[in-house]
Amino acid sequence: MGLNFNKECIMRKTMQKSNTQHDREFLQKCIDHAVASVAGEGGPFAAMIVRNGEVLGKSGNCVTLDNDPTAHAEVVAIRQAAALIGDPHLLDCVLYTSCEPCPMCLAASLWAHVPRIVYAASHAEAVRAGFDDTAFALQLFGQVMPVALPAGQLQQIAMPQAGAPFDAWLAKADRQPY
Amino acid sequence: MGLNFNKECIMRKTMQKSNTQHDREFLQKCIDHAVASVAGEGGPFAAMIVRNGEVLGKSGNCVTLDNDPTAHAEVVAIRQAAALIGDPHLLDCVLYTSCEPCPMCLAASLWAHVPRIVYAASHAEAVRAGFDDTAFALQLFGQVMPVALPAGQLQQIAMPQAGAPFDAWLAKADRQPY
Repeated sequence: MGLNFNKECIMRKTMQKSNTQHDREFLQKCIDHAVASVAGEGGPFAAMIVRNGEVLGKSGNCVTLDNDPTAHAEVVAIRQAAALIGDPHLLDCVLYTSCEPCPMCLAASLWAHVPRIVYAASHAEAVRAGFDDTAFALQLFGQVMPVALPAGQLQQIAMPQAGAPFDAWLAKADRQPY
Repeated sequence: MGLNFNKECIMRKTMQKSNTQHDREFLQKCIDHAVASVAGEGGPFAAMIVRNGEVLGKSGNCVTLDNDPTAHAEVVAIRQAAALIGDPHLLDCVLYTSCEPCPMCLAASLWAHVPRIVYAASHAEAVRAGFDDTAFALQLFGQVMPVALPAGQLQQIAMPQAGAPFDAWLAKADRQPY
């Protein structure tokens, strides 16, 4: 019993470590993609939909590229993944995103039934780069975060390079604000 | 001075009446489109983007038709209009919709800079038809309505047929909930 208990503890610790390591790897890919997005005339955000380690959707922010105000990285990744699996519900998926999702992307995740969202930069970084995320959250939520999401659904993991996409954006003289 | 004041009052009243008449006409078109959407295997919602009387975007709900959880009528109409005018910002436009916009559609309207949203049915009608609008609003806003939108941005106009799309939906034996 004691051995089993210890084994379970070790397994759980290993899984947690492994999950965090996976989480960090996918977040780093999002950050790298977001930096590349800026170089490719997109916005400084990127997101991925991942199921059991498989990437089902991946996109940078395409608002100005596509003249589509809803083409945030998270929304595009969700649309790609749902089209790929032929189902509007992304159960058992994780949404990784380079930055805290805005209210639209959070609500899109709810409609897609995505059970877990992991992000790197906070909304304050988006604001630093000139985006309206916080203003819109205050208008809709009355505070910067959603009010009552289920515990564990939305998680930030600190990443050393989280600010890099916004630094690239601010350094881009011909950036097109939106 | 008194005459001018009276003339201004009359003009304002006429404009208001005219606006309300236009609003009702566009809302009725949305309701009719939403009923047709159900018959065409879409969801029981429809929306239009209108600028100076010109329809720039118009869609029913395509979530299950397109396997796209973000394909709410409002989002699709916004995407169409922005693509048509080649600009992600829909300034000077009105969003008409057969039902109170969900949190995703409200936030999409903010990103699109749509200054005015007019809807027919309340969120309670969507809930009656089995949709999660109110549940998601409570999770995000902590109440059924957004907390602090600018005054006048979101307006309900009572329409006798507002419940028709939901009646059609509930009467459809092979409807696909989402």
